[in-house]
Amino acid sequence: MYNFTIELDQNSKKPLYTQIYEHIADEIRNGRLEENERVPSKKALSAHLGVSVNTVETAYEILAQEGYLRPVPRSGYYARRVIAPQLSSTPTVFEEKPTESFAADFRTAGADVSSFPYSTWIKLSKEVMYQNPELLNHGGFKGDIELRDSIAKYLREFRGVHCSASQIITGAGMEYLVMLLCGLSGSERVFAIENPGYGKIDLILKNSGRKVRYVPLDEKGISVKELERSGADTVYITPSHQFPSGTVMPIDRREELLRWADEKPERYIIEDDINCEFCFLKRPHTAVQGIYGSKKVIYLNTFSRVLAPSVRIAYMVLPPLLLRLFEKKFSRYASTVPRFEQRTLARFISENYLSRHLNRVKNIYRKRRDTLIEAALSSDYPIEISGEKAGLHLVLKSPRASEILKKAAENNIKLYSLDDYYFTPRENPSNAIVAGYAGTTPEDIALLRSRVLCGNA
Amino acid sequence: MYNFTIELDQNSKKPLYTQIYEHIADEIRNGRLEENERVPSKKALSAHLGVSVNTVETAYEILAQEGYLRPVPRSGYYARRVIAPQLSSTPTVFEEKPTESFAADFRTAGADVSSFPYSTWIKLSKEVMYQNPELLNHGGFKGDIELRDSIAKYLREFRGVHCSASQIITGAGMEYLVMLLCGLSGSERVFAIENPGYGKIDLILKNSGRKVRYVPLDEKGISVKELERSGADTVYITPSHQFPSGTVMPIDRREELLRWADEKPERYIIEDDINCEFCFLKRPHTAVQGIYGSKKVIYLNTFSRVLAPSVRIAYMVLPPLLLRLFEKKFSRYASTVPRFEQRTLARFISENYLSRHLNRVKNIYRKRRDTLIEAALSSDYPIEISGEKAGLHLVLKSPRASEILKKAAENNIKLYSLDDYYFTPRENPSNAIVAGYAGTTPEDIALLRSRVLCGNA
Repeated sequence: MYNFTIELDQNSKKPLYTQIYEHIADEIRNGRLEENERVPSKKALSAHLGVSVNTVETAYEILAQEGYLRPVPRSGYYARRVIAPQLSSTPTVFEEKPTESFAADFRTAGADVSSFPYSTWIKLSKEVMYQNPELLNHGGFKGDIELRDSIAKYLREFRGVHCSASQIITGAGMEYLVMLLCGLSGSERVFAIENPGYGKIDLILKNSGRKVRYVPLDEKGISVKELERSGADTVYITPSHQFPSGTVMPIDRREELLRWADEKPERYIIEDDINCEFCFLKRPHTAVQGIYGSKKVIYLNTFSRVLAPSVRIAYMVLPPLLLRLFEKKFSRYASTVPRFEQRTLARFISENYLSRHLNRVKNIYRKRRDTLIEAALSSDYPIEISGEKAGLHLVLKSPRASEILKKAAENNIKLYSLDDYYFTPRENPSNAIVAGYAGTTPEDIALLRSRVLCGNA
Repeated sequence: MYNFTIELDQNSKKPLYTQIYEHIADEIRNGRLEENERVPSKKALSAHLGVSVNTVETAYEILAQEGYLRPVPRSGYYARRVIAPQLSSTPTVFEEKPTESFAADFRTAGADVSSFPYSTWIKLSKEVMYQNPELLNHGGFKGDIELRDSIAKYLREFRGVHCSASQIITGAGMEYLVMLLCGLSGSERVFAIENPGYGKIDLILKNSGRKVRYVPLDEKGISVKELERSGADTVYITPSHQFPSGTVMPIDRREELLRWADEKPERYIIEDDINCEFCFLKRPHTAVQGIYGSKKVIYLNTFSRVLAPSVRIAYMVLPPLLLRLFEKKFSRYASTVPRFEQRTLARFISENYLSRHLNRVKNIYRKRRDTLIEAALSSDYPIEISGEKAGLHLVLKSPRASEILKKAAENNIKLYSLDDYYFTPRENPSNAIVAGYAGTTPEDIALLRSRVLCGNA
């Protein structure tokens, strides 16, 4: 018969009944205590282990409750068959990929976190937490009305977007909102995206099981002729500063797209107004949504770019028909943005901190852009600059682009080839480099200049 | 010819060039200024309006940039055809549905926000904001390692979940994580959910275009025989406290489910461990994930329920194969949880505030449950109680359930019929009421007792 000697630790924080429970459960799982074997009576085991009957009783009750023991009235407890665990004693640790580190990284997703209005943000956050404990409770599925009101006013004033707060949906990042848009459409819907374009959008659409067509650009942005040919019914565009070519879409192309959308009821434009805040033209173009009204355009933007990457607040403006559908499908979802942060941002906008902050960082970024342009122009390599009318990256064209990229890599400086932003194979290399400057310092740019761009004559 | 008299407001905050730009753009859009009509020269208009040539020049440049005017060298600027706006002057305001208000609401999603450890949370939040400005930058797509480490330790200790931090993904709410799981699977995957069950899960799966089968329950939880017949390959279960029947799944049914999953490589169990924290048994069952290891179970839980509804932090534990697939598909997504909040929660867990908080609220909820049980037992209606072994709602069975529901409605007290949680039509009414108590006060329960349950003999 099985030996019921259990080593109990009287000094452990673990109660004695738990120690007994765990020992017996282990023995049943690993098969040492066999199916249908009877365990000692409570009295017998308590005497054997020198613990109270009550302690054993509690352990047996838990074992019975969890199904390790089968109680038989007037007879006792019997071991049940329990699946043997397939476990190693410690869980496997899967390695996390380390993030790469460069001497300078000109990635487009960079941001100047040092310009974040830290003390204002903390002050507002604290006030909101102390003053608004009611925000601990459930909020609206579209986000809180205070924030959506502030965004609507901001959009009307700064972007000419034509909307009311009720059309605005906030969410924890652009990815999430695009996932919602996928849920809003059927799987038969065909999306067109710009080629070259934003790889993440391609990824999100495909991960959501949506069909994607790649539409080439010309000098004004996405080609409407090619869009028509693609058979897509929803087009995703970045008109404020095409990602990554940097084209600012002129008004006639915007109109052409609106006419395209107007031709069939199922057609929609997703306007990702990314980097509209960093337009270095005299005056930024009005958003496509604002030219024609809100019927055919889904307007999309985020605060991650203008505040800090870790501020996960994006928003979209839905046209009326889609809004009704959204309310039908998603009204039971909880908003993904914490309400304290929603209120903090609402106050940040309505108390004019946002517009002041934008003016400030726009100047910072303009200077950084100018420094990068200067470095590129002073290069021994023949370089032609484009995409400079808006933020936050430049496109550097050069017949010797591959040489520049190679030299940068040798110096542990990360530049990106425009080729990598194409979704379809190219016959000829683009001979162009994408250089984001928002996350760089003047020192990074000096490094690029001295180690890569100059002294190669 | 068109009359170019523009009423300018010298005292407006709007610059004069903007006023001129807006006026001309409007006139072109509404067709009063016709296509190919030439606008006055800069000099002429500046003289006419009494402003500087520079002001008019800026306005014209913007109009040309936006495509309203076509500049012709050595001739002047001509109006282009621009789509007439279809806009009313103010955007339509879509009504937001007002939230219903009841004298008492026994909904299952309620929470006792007053027990939230407010001062501790604010203290930690402030410290994190002041001490960790680096958290403004991009974080990991799975969430930050500090939080995932704390969760892994917490799960091992309190739920017997067998995992390492690398298997944990955090996200802004359960809905978002289930959306990711949908993205992880192909559209051919068939999900089974408990019937009656959690309507939101049904909604999310369907919104994500996934096939759903409804599998009936027996007294131990979801029927494995019926699950087998459904042809589903992924099953969503709530074993800690089946929603809404309140069944705590016994160990043998858990094993049966694991055996089902083990039979085919594509089969998975999604274990939503909702309310595991509020188990009133001597000791909560080990999570299904912990019985057998991590190969077949996706473990899912949220902190919204134990902290506050507005804390949007949920998490899941992925088995190794799915983890690899997740990393492949989603590593470019940004985490949806703000990093300050991630760190705050990480400290809240690792500095033992969470376990203390849980003990406290568990006692609060146990008392509230007992008050509700007492009220139900003292009723003139014949009532049988179930689902009381764990939180945070009871099921009240009564042949006179419809009468009770009607009387509650007459008194503006919100109770829920179990019928409403079925996804398929029922032949006979369930004669059962679902009563959540987490969001109620003792006064609410007293109201239910005096106005609905008693005095009807």
